[in-house]
Amino acid sequence: MKNLPVFYRRPMYLFALFFFLLLVPCRIFAQSFVPELNPPSQKSQRIITSASKKPILGNMQLRHEMAGLLGEKVGPDDSGDVYHAGGLSGYYTGPKKLFPGKGKLQDFYKFLPVIRWYDPDYYFNTEAFHPGSAVTGEYENEQCIICHTLENPGLVTQWRQSKHAATSEGREIVGCDRCHGKNHEKLIMPSYVVCGECHEKQLKGHRDGGRGSHAHAYHLELIDQGCQMEKPAEETAACLACHAIAENRCDGCHTRHRFSAAEARKPTSCGVCHSGPEQYEYEMYMQSFHGMIYQGEGQTWDWSRPLNAKNYTVPTCAYCHMPEGNHNVRSMSTVYTYMGTSLVDRGTYRYKEARDAWIVLCKDCHSPRFARDHLEAMDEAVKLSFVKYREAMAIVIALYKANLIDPMPSDLAPDSRGHNIFSLLPGKGEMRKYNVSNIERLTYEMLVDITGAIYKAKAHNAYYSPIYGYWEWAQDRWLVQIKDEAGKLKRFAEIEETLGIKYTAPPFWKHGEYTDMLLGVKRKEWGK
Amino acid sequence: MKNLPVFYRRPMYLFALFFFLLLVPCRIFAQSFVPELNPPSQKSQRIITSASKKPILGNMQLRHEMAGLLGEKVGPDDSGDVYHAGGLSGYYTGPKKLFPGKGKLQDFYKFLPVIRWYDPDYYFNTEAFHPGSAVTGEYENEQCIICHTLENPGLVTQWRQSKHAATSEGREIVGCDRCHGKNHEKLIMPSYVVCGECHEKQLKGHRDGGRGSHAHAYHLELIDQGCQMEKPAEETAACLACHAIAENRCDGCHTRHRFSAAEARKPTSCGVCHSGPEQYEYEMYMQSFHGMIYQGEGQTWDWSRPLNAKNYTVPTCAYCHMPEGNHNVRSMSTVYTYMGTSLVDRGTYRYKEARDAWIVLCKDCHSPRFARDHLEAMDEAVKLSFVKYREAMAIVIALYKANLIDPMPSDLAPDSRGHNIFSLLPGKGEMRKYNVSNIERLTYEMLVDITGAIYKAKAHNAYYSPIYGYWEWAQDRWLVQIKDEAGKLKRFAEIEETLGIKYTAPPFWKHGEYTDMLLGVKRKEWGK
Amino acid sequence: MKNLPVFYRRPMYLFALFFFLLLVPCRIFAQSFVPELNPPSQKSQRIITSASKKPILGNMQLRHEMAGLLGEKVGPDDSGDVYHAGGLSGYYTGPKKLFPGKGKLQDFYKFLPVIRWYDPDYYFNTEAFHPGSAVTGEYENEQCIICHTLENPGLVTQWRQSKHAATSEGREIVGCDRCHGKNHEKLIMPSYVVCGECHEKQLKGHRDGGRGSHAHAYHLELIDQGCQMEKPAEETAACLACHAIAENRCDGCHTRHRFSAAEARKPTSCGVCHSGPEQYEYEMYMQSFHGMIYQGEGQTWDWSRPLNAKNYTVPTCAYCHMPEGNHNVRSMSTVYTYMGTSLVDRGTYRYKEARDAWIVLCKDCHSPRFARDHLEAMDEAVKLSFVKYREAMAIVIALYKANLIDPMPSDLAPDSRGHNIFSLLPGKGEMRKYNVSNIERLTYEMLVDITGAIYKAKAHNAYYSPIYGYWEWAQDRWLVQIKDEAGKLKRFAEIEETLGIKYTAPPFWKHGEYTDMLLGVKRKEWGK
Repeated sequence: MKNLPVFYRRPMYLFALFFFLLLVPCRIFAQSFVPELNPPSQKSQRIITSASKKPILGNMQLRHEMAGLLGEKVGPDDSGDVYHAGGLSGYYTGPKKLFPGKGKLQDFYKFLPVIRWYDPDYYFNTEAFHPGSAVTGEYENEQCIICHTLENPGLVTQWRQSKHAATSEGREIVGCDRCHGKNHEKLIMPSYVVCGECHEKQLKGHRDGGRGSHAHAYHLELIDQGCQMEKPAEETAACLACHAIAENRCDGCHTRHRFSAAEARKPTSCGVCHSGPEQYEYEMYMQSFHGMIYQGEGQTWDWSRPLNAKNYTVPTCAYCHMPEGNHNVRSMSTVYTYMGTSLVDRGTYRYKEARDAWIVLCKDCHSPRFARDHLEAMDEAVKLSFVKYREAMAIVIALYKANLIDPMPSDLAPDSRGHNIFSLLPGKGEMRKYNVSNIERLTYEMLVDITGAIYKAKAHNAYYSPIYGYWEWAQDRWLVQIKDEAGKLKRFAEIEETLGIKYTAPPFWKHGEYTDMLLGVKRKEWGK
Repeated sequence: MKNLPVFYRRPMYLFALFFFLLLVPCRIFAQSFVPELNPPSQKSQRIITSASKKPILGNMQLRHEMAGLLGEKVGPDDSGDVYHAGGLSGYYTGPKKLFPGKGKLQDFYKFLPVIRWYDPDYYFNTEAFHPGSAVTGEYENEQCIICHTLENPGLVTQWRQSKHAATSEGREIVGCDRCHGKNHEKLIMPSYVVCGECHEKQLKGHRDGGRGSHAHAYHLELIDQGCQMEKPAEETAACLACHAIAENRCDGCHTRHRFSAAEARKPTSCGVCHSGPEQYEYEMYMQSFHGMIYQGEGQTWDWSRPLNAKNYTVPTCAYCHMPEGNHNVRSMSTVYTYMGTSLVDRGTYRYKEARDAWIVLCKDCHSPRFARDHLEAMDEAVKLSFVKYREAMAIVIALYKANLIDPMPSDLAPDSRGHNIFSLLPGKGEMRKYNVSNIERLTYEMLVDITGAIYKAKAHNAYYSPIYGYWEWAQDRWLVQIKDEAGKLKRFAEIEETLGIKYTAPPFWKHGEYTDMLLGVKRKEWGK
Repeated sequence: MKNLPVFYRRPMYLFALFFFLLLVPCRIFAQSFVPELNPPSQKSQRIITSASKKPILGNMQLRHEMAGLLGEKVGPDDSGDVYHAGGLSGYYTGPKKLFPGKGKLQDFYKFLPVIRWYDPDYYFNTEAFHPGSAVTGEYENEQCIICHTLENPGLVTQWRQSKHAATSEGREIVGCDRCHGKNHEKLIMPSYVVCGECHEKQLKGHRDGGRGSHAHAYHLELIDQGCQMEKPAEETAACLACHAIAENRCDGCHTRHRFSAAEARKPTSCGVCHSGPEQYEYEMYMQSFHGMIYQGEGQTWDWSRPLNAKNYTVPTCAYCHMPEGNHNVRSMSTVYTYMGTSLVDRGTYRYKEARDAWIVLCKDCHSPRFARDHLEAMDEAVKLSFVKYREAMAIVIALYKANLIDPMPSDLAPDSRGHNIFSLLPGKGEMRKYNVSNIERLTYEMLVDITGAIYKAKAHNAYYSPIYGYWEWAQDRWLVQIKDEAGKLKRFAEIEETLGIKYTAPPFWKHGEYTDMLLGVKRKEWGK
């Protein structure tokens, strides 16, 4: 580890301190050179409209060659022309409109306007961003309904199906104006704040979640840490949809305009976000005995009833993680491990209370011993899964120390913080997934997508997933790939040494039409 | 691009012209050497029966070695013997029976007999191919039912559930004889022609679709372009099932013998074909809020009702793409982009009408601004996704020009047209997926399976798919692999140059037991 | 094949003989050095408790470096501490408790205690392993119900929904005590033996299955062949769950405590085990017309009715494989081919009876000719798929003979039998998936996960799967990867030969923190 700069031998908090100290001069310096990135002042903070259409010139030669082959003209990618065979003769023009970032890192990224639907209190309901409306005047619910039955029949139908529209149980109608306001030019797009005015208990549960809960999915993971800093806004819109709706709105689970508890009790409600390679809890559940029985019979169950063993034959996501409707999803959990990427034995005495709570839950249908045996099998599988990751890391770090990674960090475009460091080493704060050496990416995947999934698969009783995951014995497969790659790197190095060839990584790791758009690159250039 | 033959610098239509001019002498020449490939004359066009059983001798040595290890005999793969461990001691005998091709390219491929069910007007209902029947005589519906209730109870049960069997609404019964005819020896296998006799409006919608619609899925993409020319008939049977049923028959969506509109309205009806790596629209929809709500509740909806916002809580495939039962699926679309593999900005003024039609549809449940923001996010994501593809292509084309691809086209078995050209360059007309260099295949996948999917995922509101696709941040992952592979190819080249080694690609790229069966290879040999 | 040791040119039965002869001295020798692995004598066979906590020292240096970076202490992985970023500063402590193996190979592996639920007659119901209970006394059903309604409300609710609880049809109640016994300290965990006391016919069907049936899934494939010998117990627990429940228990399909025939008739019942890369029959079915119609409508069907064409619109898993409730799933099959990894033509006269039985089944809804054409298309697709595998194997075996595989078997940690042989060659008895060269793993996958799936996809009418499988044209993709890898290995070899470099495989193929835990390695060390 001696090859590492001294700084990286310090713990993470020093890194964080350093990072923020660095921001100030960096920002000032950057602003002086790149005026369009000056942060909008609080007063004049407005929507940014992209005016310039000049092409980004990365490899224009390719475009002209391709245009010749295709009989096409080289042209901007927003022209409406169809650029055949991979769009090779088009050039990038960028988003028509961008919204500024938010919070202390606001100058380091932008958003597509779609953000206003997912963070409405900041990007919709404030004067700076409010989109206004062509319709003027103030309206009450009955009047809203008249127009919107014609304009948005589905929306009104859904609301009519909701408890908000029902008066039969003596409740007051919760109409359009209650949540959106009456002034059509200044309509409100409701966040949890509005819902919480009536649903206090649920809101409290939601907000109490802490780290790892829905209530922090947007700020902690996107706004304050700035994952989206690495990427152009065009790519992070879909990340934001899940992360921001989970934190800011209630209709991520109780979709508008029915706002149904029955809907939110179903696994499908969770599956919109909890699926896909990094977090396939939905697929794991669906593959378990529990999930298969749910799939076979769930449509016959009365989902309006509370989630307990008398009403349901098998547990669902919410049955276990939101017992008795507790909206604090962290209440049924053990310890936060960054999506299963940190190692911990959840069976130790320290977590006895959490473990016992799970046993009690399983005991609805299973003997405590059955539950305990299965949870201990999970503990052991988790421990072993990290042994494999350590074997991989020992190989990769040895390569790194021997300067054999291809490319080495210094041969790469800088990361989102403007640094060129080895992305797998702790201390960096962010494991890099893009534009890194193949072996770093393999190792990243082995931890985040595969090792993390073993814990989750065991926890959700997906039989094949801990073994196979996304592929047959996926951990072993990745370990073979990592060893194979390491072997090739060593062979190249020995051969080149024998021949006196000094290998330099190809320049495409530093620059390229897309790579030049990664935000770290731009920032580095500002600082030159 | 100077290294390319002059021909490839010309636009595609010249290529097409050249290609068809080439066919004539090629065909004559080929026929003179390969008599069994002479096209059956129109009069005597008959089913071809494979008589020869002599082994194709590709690498018989391997078989004998393996047979020794296993204590097995070397034998034909149609013997009924079990050949263990990968069938290493068996040899290929080919299909028992083959049907000739069809149309102008008919001599360049054959079909398994299963084609008669998917292109019945040509391969079933004509004299040349009609399979006849052991049962003689003429029958009317009531008589058919008597026998077939015993022979095919499910089939009759299904028909009884159909509207064709119901007279209650004053309709005439549509019985077996109405579609299949009365003469049991000359039974008809009905195509859309028969259905269209009553269902004129639906048929017209179907046939009006134009390029990219169901009505062209078989002829345009398989018969007239000849994708199946690349492969033995054994492999293309499953391609044909979807492509041909979509064009030729109505029971691809309204399955026999219920022919149910309700069934065809469900996403499951579309999912049979619109799933899997190249076209996973079904999976994308299912992962969206729309699809999850459909999964959670769809079974309680009354699917006999027309698809509109009053009857359904969320949209389905047909709700959006076949509004009011319009069977022209291209009516709700923008511009044809070869499954998303060509770049276009669908948000430009040129496509205003199409965009507005979508906004109107979304407006059933969403504000127009909400819809527009999401569609613009799609436009921007698409534009950016092609930036990454261009970065990859710039690297790969530079390698190609430097003669560093391994293998280079000239080291490969020829493609289906008998050429040895670089499969990724426009002008070829067909991007090659089989028996190409690893870097070409990676780049092909990056465009067709990954970049194309970003457009579709955004269009279907699948949150994780535009980010992850089939793997986490799939586009970035493939870009890393392409760069890594390019780096290795450069290292090899520099080392070999230093050593004076002249690298030649291994012969297994030109020949192999399977590679020798690719139709392009055979054709090249005929022309020798 | 001359390079192979003479032994491997002999048929498999000689290998089997040799293997068992080898076991005796091996075991004795091993025991003398490794006392803790002495098999428990039959009398004193007891649960093994892991006492030692001393760290396994593989690469402790990595841990200390990482601990420094993270500001963490190096510590045992069962401490309850969270080890960040991949658990790099934790060390492995092993399972708290292990159960001994079973049968003739019992000394070569251990189980996690969770095995007792899946092989209850051996690991739960015997004196040696019975877990006892804190509750004493004898109870009858009515008394059981009183306590367990409080303790396990879901369990009791499920039982009440079962036919076991119903007396309305004149049946005797089958209560808790009937299956679990009355003595609470010596409760029975029922296997099929208990169920078979009443359900004789079903039990007989289950037990008659023979090789390839549920009744052999545990003993033949795990206990007597010892697949789990290759891996630590922590990893094989999930394998055992499916394999052992299928053989030993009836509630793998009829889940407790409803034991419902209706549940077991649904595809979801089969999908718990028959899904995932090695055996994705469930996914294949779901993607077919049959499966899509089931998904669209299945919830409206009356699953209490027998599986036949009058009651169901489309076939399901059990409809075809367990006709009329026949519990011998091998009765509707053709010939055993190790999950489709051996080549056979199922359409030959030798299998006429089996083929005809399938035609009769399809005839419920389809014409016999339709069925036959589709089954013959399957036969041909299977034959062709093995041609591709042979092309791959010819390349890989040539590399092996030329000593070019990296690593060669002798450079690897030994396999579970303690050997270092080429895993792809028949005669070994076990194809190796872990810690083998990349090209061996690719070839293994091409056979087991991809070629095997082509047969199954065609058999289940999954259109896209025979073409794409887990990726687009997966067989072709793997063949390209294998050729590419072979090409690189040849280039390295030629360069190194020119330079006089004698390549030796890196030591990480022989040793590593995880690799040292593979059981073959340990055994080899005993024998030193």
